[in-house]
Amino acid sequence: MTKLSVLGSTGSIGRNTLEVVRQFPERFQVVGLAAGCNVDLLKEQIDRFRPAVAAVRDEAAADMLARFFGGSNYRPEIVWGSEGYRQVAALDAADTVVSAIVGAAGLEPTLAAVEAGKRLALANKEALVAAGRLVTERAKARGVDIIPVDSEHSAIFQSLQGNPRNALKRILLTASGGPFLRATPEELARVTPEAALKHPNWSMGRKITVDSASLMNKGLEVIEACWLFDVSPDRIAVHVHPESIVHSMVEYVDGSVIAQLGVPDMKIPIAYALTWPDRLPVEAPVLDLFELRRLTFFPPDMERFPCLRLAYEACREGGTAPAVLNAADEVAVHAFLEHRLAFMDIPRLIESLLDRHQGGAATTLEAVLDADRWAREEALKLAAAWCR
Amino acid sequence: MTKLSVLGSTGSIGRNTLEVVRQFPERFQVVGLAAGCNVDLLKEQIDRFRPAVAAVRDEAAADMLARFFGGSNYRPEIVWGSEGYRQVAALDAADTVVSAIVGAAGLEPTLAAVEAGKRLALANKEALVAAGRLVTERAKARGVDIIPVDSEHSAIFQSLQGNPRNALKRILLTASGGPFLRATPEELARVTPEAALKHPNWSMGRKITVDSASLMNKGLEVIEACWLFDVSPDRIAVHVHPESIVHSMVEYVDGSVIAQLGVPDMKIPIAYALTWPDRLPVEAPVLDLFELRRLTFFPPDMERFPCLRLAYEACREGGTAPAVLNAADEVAVHAFLEHRLAFMDIPRLIESLLDRHQGGAATTLEAVLDADRWAREEALKLAAAWCR
Repeated sequence: MTKLSVLGSTGSIGRNTLEVVRQFPERFQVVGLAAGCNVDLLKEQIDRFRPAVAAVRDEAAADMLARFFGGSNYRPEIVWGSEGYRQVAALDAADTVVSAIVGAAGLEPTLAAVEAGKRLALANKEALVAAGRLVTERAKARGVDIIPVDSEHSAIFQSLQGNPRNALKRILLTASGGPFLRATPEELARVTPEAALKHPNWSMGRKITVDSASLMNKGLEVIEACWLFDVSPDRIAVHVHPESIVHSMVEYVDGSVIAQLGVPDMKIPIAYALTWPDRLPVEAPVLDLFELRRLTFFPPDMERFPCLRLAYEACREGGTAPAVLNAADEVAVHAFLEHRLAFMDIPRLIESLLDRHQGGAATTLEAVLDADRWAREEALKLAAAWCR
Repeated sequence: MTKLSVLGSTGSIGRNTLEVVRQFPERFQVVGLAAGCNVDLLKEQIDRFRPAVAAVRDEAAADMLARFFGGSNYRPEIVWGSEGYRQVAALDAADTVVSAIVGAAGLEPTLAAVEAGKRLALANKEALVAAGRLVTERAKARGVDIIPVDSEHSAIFQSLQGNPRNALKRILLTASGGPFLRATPEELARVTPEAALKHPNWSMGRKITVDSASLMNKGLEVIEACWLFDVSPDRIAVHVHPESIVHSMVEYVDGSVIAQLGVPDMKIPIAYALTWPDRLPVEAPVLDLFELRRLTFFPPDMERFPCLRLAYEACREGGTAPAVLNAADEVAVHAFLEHRLAFMDIPRLIESLLDRHQGGAATTLEAVLDADRWAREEALKLAAAWCR
């Protein structure tokens, strides 16, 4: 019986995680849930899974949640804010933590889970993007396994099983290419939030869907992969693969390539992260290559999608550059979703911040958070100045 | 330093094995070589790799080989015939045996290597097709690892690494489809040996090339896979994949599919079989999916290619049926190559023998060899009767 804390339980990864738990009640017990402000859904999840502790974003949400359980015999301990998230991440009763809070807000609880020695099923990209050195070094020191949940990184992780570390040559990271794969520069300049939110293959949150459209999501994944698999960015080759069936590949020194394929369904990598090296018979559609007939691959266009180029550059620069990239992207995407910035302003804003930031090592949480804060403030100023 | 005996050193797999040895002289030493009657090439190989023992098919070939070394200081021990092959297979100095003699002739030396406790890099299909139960049971009893060399089985073996045995759901065995993939029944009826010997992707021996054209090669691989990976034939789905890049796949209970890809170059699976679980930086062309652009898959047509259906049927029947299938195929392909039978007579002849054979368990070498002998005799009679 695996005892789970789920950080970000009302988001896409969190809901899929609880769906896996529902399918295998004999394998999992939910001991902690942490959500943002979707208190209604959290309440339903609490009713169903009966965690000992539940965390929400702030005191108001905590009060609202407490009122739901006012009259009932059962009520979880309700906590809030970053301290509440840390508490759920480090819960004594939990052996595995699913870290699926979106954005930089997921960083501190992720670190808390690592410090507490929990097995980490990691879906929060930003913890590795902004603080990859910190998270991976502390995990190593604490003997914590980080098992990626992202379909691409899960594919790489799966493709590395049973192979010696020094046999790895390159990572072939696949990308759907998003909805604007074949858009002209003129069309890209006119992209609306509504169009960007229509991803061809995956159903995900709003921020990550826009990042998929700009290829920033792939850029963040490149940085994440560098930390997870201890390779330089120049050993990661993005392969655009519009069918989203090959979730990524590993090329070995002998010329062999091992790939993981499957229908785009997050329950598969989530379940794998929870049970690795075992596999569960998850209820998910089965891949039918006869129906699909073909898989295609081509190189990404970094001219039309400068976000990917910027991510490679930030990754090569290292230090706090990826934290700046990530924070600037969060602000820019938010402004884009509110129709305050154009789609191609996203990379423009990020590049402007990367050009101006001072650099520095990312060896402490403070350094990372300082860089994040500086980038957010500057990005907000720029976004306001550029507002259409 | 791995000490190798190579059975079938002058064939396609044997030559590629020695090419891998040439690339990594610090990793391998050749202690035994066994060939058929290509004494000239064997002499060159002996000069280069200096094995302690060399085997040839018969005494005449042994005499010819001995004459080559008459005047030189160095000469290997020269042995011949099935006793000679067994000797090379069981050489004290060898720790790994590459079993690459084509056809049923490879069965006895393969068993000898297993009995001697050697690690077995297995390329000889027929040992498993005709005597799969014997070979795998004895290997298990002796604690011998059988590592497949065939590109498809190597791919499956690689795709199984790091996964628990009970997670395996199906094997997706890829097939190039051969040169007549899109031929009509009328065109198949008129296929000449010259046309059948032109394989689109792989350069191989004559027998296996014809088997690739009839899909019997895939059928034999289905039977082989059943024994190697302990699954029933109904859990093996052949996927026609004309590019021959995905060498095969494994589908797991969670819906994940793990695949091994690479350029069609036998040095890759050979080197892997010799060094598993390590990998060597073999000199082989690197897979470029950008150049390739697409991978396609579709189901095989068992109407136009009855050999594949017959192999499934023989596999389901079990016992000596696969030995009969295999022997009948060897005779039929030989007759086809000599223009004595038509291409579509191959499955016709095999089916006629499968219909008539008595069945029986394949638990002893004698039972297997009896079935093989019966099938050969009957097949020769039929081939003579049908001769065009």
